[in-house]
Amino acid sequence: MALKAKVLYDFHSENPGEISIAENEVVTLFSEEELEGWLEGENSRGEAGLFPASYVEIIRDHITSNNNGFSLTQTKVQTSYTSSQPHRGFGPDSSSFHTSQDSDDDWDDEWDDSSPVANVPQGLGSSPPLHPVATSLPGRGSSQQQQAKSSATVGRNLNRFSTFVKSGGEAFLLGEASAFVKDGDRICVVMGKHGPEWQEDPYPFTCTIDDPTKQTKFKGMKSYMSYGLTPTHTNVQVNRRYKHFDWLYGRLVERFPVISVPHLPEKQATGRFEEDFLSKRRKGLIWWMNHMTSHPVLAHCDVFQHFLTCGADEKAWKQGKRKAERDELVGANFFLTISPPAVPLDLQEVESKIEGFKTFTKKMDENIVVVNTSINEFGRKQISGFKKEYQKVGQSFKLLAQAFELDQQVYSVGLNKAISYTGEAYEAIGEYFADQPRQDLDLISDLLDIYKGHLANFPDIIHVQKGALTKVKDCPKKEGELHDRCNIISFATLAEIQHFHRTRVRDFRSQMQYHLRQQISFFQKITAKLEDALQRYDDDQ
Amino acid sequence: MALKAKVLYDFHSENPGEISIAENEVVTLFSEEELEGWLEGENSRGEAGLFPASYVEIIRDHITSNNNGFSLTQTKVQTSYTSSQPHRGFGPDSSSFHTSQDSDDDWDDEWDDSSPVANVPQGLGSSPPLHPVATSLPGRGSSQQQQAKSSATVGRNLNRFSTFVKSGGEAFLLGEASAFVKDGDRICVVMGKHGPEWQEDPYPFTCTIDDPTKQTKFKGMKSYMSYGLTPTHTNVQVNRRYKHFDWLYGRLVERFPVISVPHLPEKQATGRFEEDFLSKRRKGLIWWMNHMTSHPVLAHCDVFQHFLTCGADEKAWKQGKRKAERDELVGANFFLTISPPAVPLDLQEVESKIEGFKTFTKKMDENIVVVNTSINEFGRKQISGFKKEYQKVGQSFKLLAQAFELDQQVYSVGLNKAISYTGEAYEAIGEYFADQPRQDLDLISDLLDIYKGHLANFPDIIHVQKGALTKVKDCPKKEGELHDRCNIISFATLAEIQHFHRTRVRDFRSQMQYHLRQQISFFQKITAKLEDALQRYDDDQ
Repeated sequence: MALKAKVLYDFHSENPGEISIAENEVVTLFSEEELEGWLEGENSRGEAGLFPASYVEIIRDHITSNNNGFSLTQTKVQTSYTSSQPHRGFGPDSSSFHTSQDSDDDWDDEWDDSSPVANVPQGLGSSPPLHPVATSLPGRGSSQQQQAKSSATVGRNLNRFSTFVKSGGEAFLLGEASAFVKDGDRICVVMGKHGPEWQEDPYPFTCTIDDPTKQTKFKGMKSYMSYGLTPTHTNVQVNRRYKHFDWLYGRLVERFPVISVPHLPEKQATGRFEEDFLSKRRKGLIWWMNHMTSHPVLAHCDVFQHFLTCGADEKAWKQGKRKAERDELVGANFFLTISPPAVPLDLQEVESKIEGFKTFTKKMDENIVVVNTSINEFGRKQISGFKKEYQKVGQSFKLLAQAFELDQQVYSVGLNKAISYTGEAYEAIGEYFADQPRQDLDLISDLLDIYKGHLANFPDIIHVQKGALTKVKDCPKKEGELHDRCNIISFATLAEIQHFHRTRVRDFRSQMQYHLRQQISFFQKITAKLEDALQRYDDDQ
Repeated sequence: MALKAKVLYDFHSENPGEISIAENEVVTLFSEEELEGWLEGENSRGEAGLFPASYVEIIRDHITSNNNGFSLTQTKVQTSYTSSQPHRGFGPDSSSFHTSQDSDDDWDDEWDDSSPVANVPQGLGSSPPLHPVATSLPGRGSSQQQQAKSSATVGRNLNRFSTFVKSGGEAFLLGEASAFVKDGDRICVVMGKHGPEWQEDPYPFTCTIDDPTKQTKFKGMKSYMSYGLTPTHTNVQVNRRYKHFDWLYGRLVERFPVISVPHLPEKQATGRFEEDFLSKRRKGLIWWMNHMTSHPVLAHCDVFQHFLTCGADEKAWKQGKRKAERDELVGANFFLTISPPAVPLDLQEVESKIEGFKTFTKKMDENIVVVNTSINEFGRKQISGFKKEYQKVGQSFKLLAQAFELDQQVYSVGLNKAISYTGEAYEAIGEYFADQPRQDLDLISDLLDIYKGHLANFPDIIHVQKGALTKVKDCPKKEGELHDRCNIISFATLAEIQHFHRTRVRDFRSQMQYHLRQQISFFQKITAKLEDALQRYDDDQ
């Protein structure tokens, strides 16, 4: 019998080799084997090609009780990893944030060469895939023994690639996670006015990112860009390269299974010293940093603090790096660090909240694509069409002045100059229009980019929570045993959702305000130019 | 031998059947006979078709001494007369002013039927051609006798259709004009700071034109539009129809050979009760009236005063109408009414001034076509493209708000409303852009239309003056005899040119000021809308 899978989400093919699939559609798989997050198969319209493995669940006849769609093959490919993979950008021409830690340009430099990644869990490091690592992988605690023990009581998922499994959610739920949690590592979820939330950051800080400077090494043989970061809580500048961000990103994704780690701005192989690219990347990094420092959990985790505060001392850097790579509190063990509030959780309410959030993210994801397309198009129109129209009118006013200048009567001269100036004013206004998108629309686009990244993270986060809930429901007799651990996952997920909403409201409010202020001063600048032109007509009345 | 003609001005074909001809090119004529102002022939590129008769002069071998180009066939077709003629519009889609007095809609009404045009000179009245009438036509004084007398001393132009001849300029120069000129008919040219000018109007006035109202007659069988005119010097409203304007225009053109009578806005056979057309015609009539009342000579001439002041008394109207149609001081006799200043005129300086003005009008004519095209295009872009772009961005902001509304957290509601309002603000701004051209660009277009009409008048005016100057030069022995009369023509022409420049500077200055003020308040309105939107973000911080 051909292997079938049920489609969980709409997927629209954007590249050759991909096929579109629709929610609830049943597709035929050519193989169960994933190709870096993609599956090959045929849709109901008979088209054959690739689609993301995480968008479907494989239909297995022998798992009759498990048809909720959250415990099967669901490895989510978020964005592109390498240039050879099908690329899923955001909108027709916007840049996307990526989740990879590909080797950056000259990744092979001194401190990398000297620190073999022996302790980095498989599946992370310098090659894809990049998903939260499963606790069942070698070298991560004693999950293999525990698996043997617990599988006798509650069934494990058959597909060891499910997000629920890989995140460590399952292992934690089944009581397989075990690690020593220091007080400093403890993460508190509290009940706020609007539901569970991460405990407020008692020591909030921000961090500036300077324009990157070009550095060289090997006597100028190699060059790279370095960013000066200055966190407000130390006020000491440290220098970091993009690859350091990339390394940090990998650690964070591994460390925090139900936290939406902001995506890094996309890296670019060629032209990486070009102004536009550097400016765009820096803006992306600023947003990234903003989301890191404003997240109560991420902001204070060890690896991020090491990244922000370790100076030029290479030895100290390496020590911190190794420590982070050996961190035990990743994946399943992460959940051990969570202190939930001492209040009951209504499972039905949780389910409805999560379902609502799923609908929300789907709609937001769809609509910001439209917004991004519109504002990019609007920006292009301002740069080309609007500018051209104002300049054409400006030029024609100047032509009128030129014709009038053939009349050298003294009473004509003032008017000629005024009309000519008006022509110049219109040309200037054309330039204003062309300059404006960089001042406002582009910034909205940057904001949408970082949110596009978060929206790509949430399906996995929701899968973990849903997986846990399903597991609890599927095993009513074990419910009491699993209940508290499931609640910890739910509390963490709800806190993260709450954090997402708060950050979103904050960011969109301030960006829209900024945008409107920019537009207001833009139109005021135009008005001032026209007023200036108008005055020229009074000079010689 | 094929009949040849030398091209005096560039003509660019705009309609099927026309051919383009270039200044100084020699074209072959198929016939010497004009078709309502057009000649048929072949240009040097071998294209055959129609071109305006007034743009060429026929080359006749037996007039060897007369090769200056201003005393031969020069009947200028200014704009279109009837719909069956090739139409020469202004720009691709702007309306043109016309010089005709075609029968308007129901021209056959009571007062026309009862006043046969027996006394209207041939070539005027209700059918084309519409050029200033020649004094040598029957029924106009004693020019035929005088012709017999004077042709013995100074040669007349062979072509009786030349503008110089038809305007009466030649007859006057040759001393053939004779009429009784009352003091009240005397028109003074004085020496002003900038050269000869019409004596300033001691009793300036203006005249308002109300929105037209629909009137009916024959018990509602026929309907027409009537305009209420209220001149400031009487402050009594009179009602006039378009055909009355048209009749007046005909009288004025006949009466004042070297004065640029403003063209009436184009009439339109169908849809003449439609809002847009009526609004456009009214604007055109307002400009026309403005140019009439601000011209010191036209403003106070009898026929215009009769038009402005005669009330509903039909008998009085007919009397004034007949008097105007029997006016003897038309054409050649017009020049008898001119009192020149008692200062010498340097013929060389006059020639150079006229030549300079010819260059000016040519350039202005060319460049206002570009201006008109640009602003019409700009207007269209604002109505379509600009509006669409702002509305698309507005709609996408609203979509963003719609997605956000799926989050019902209390801290989210204010932002959702603010973004939604911002979307509406952008949609409103789109409407502002679409509405704006009617407020400013269209008015520039109207101004250019009235000037397009003047620019079409001046070649004929210049021809009359040049014709006179050439005649004087060609007959050196008669120079003394002709000199004073030639000076009168030159003084009148220079005064009219001066008047044109002053009016032009006044009109363009005020229109550009108005335009800029409109644009300033337009951008201020946008700014206010954006400020309003911005405030919405503060409501619930």
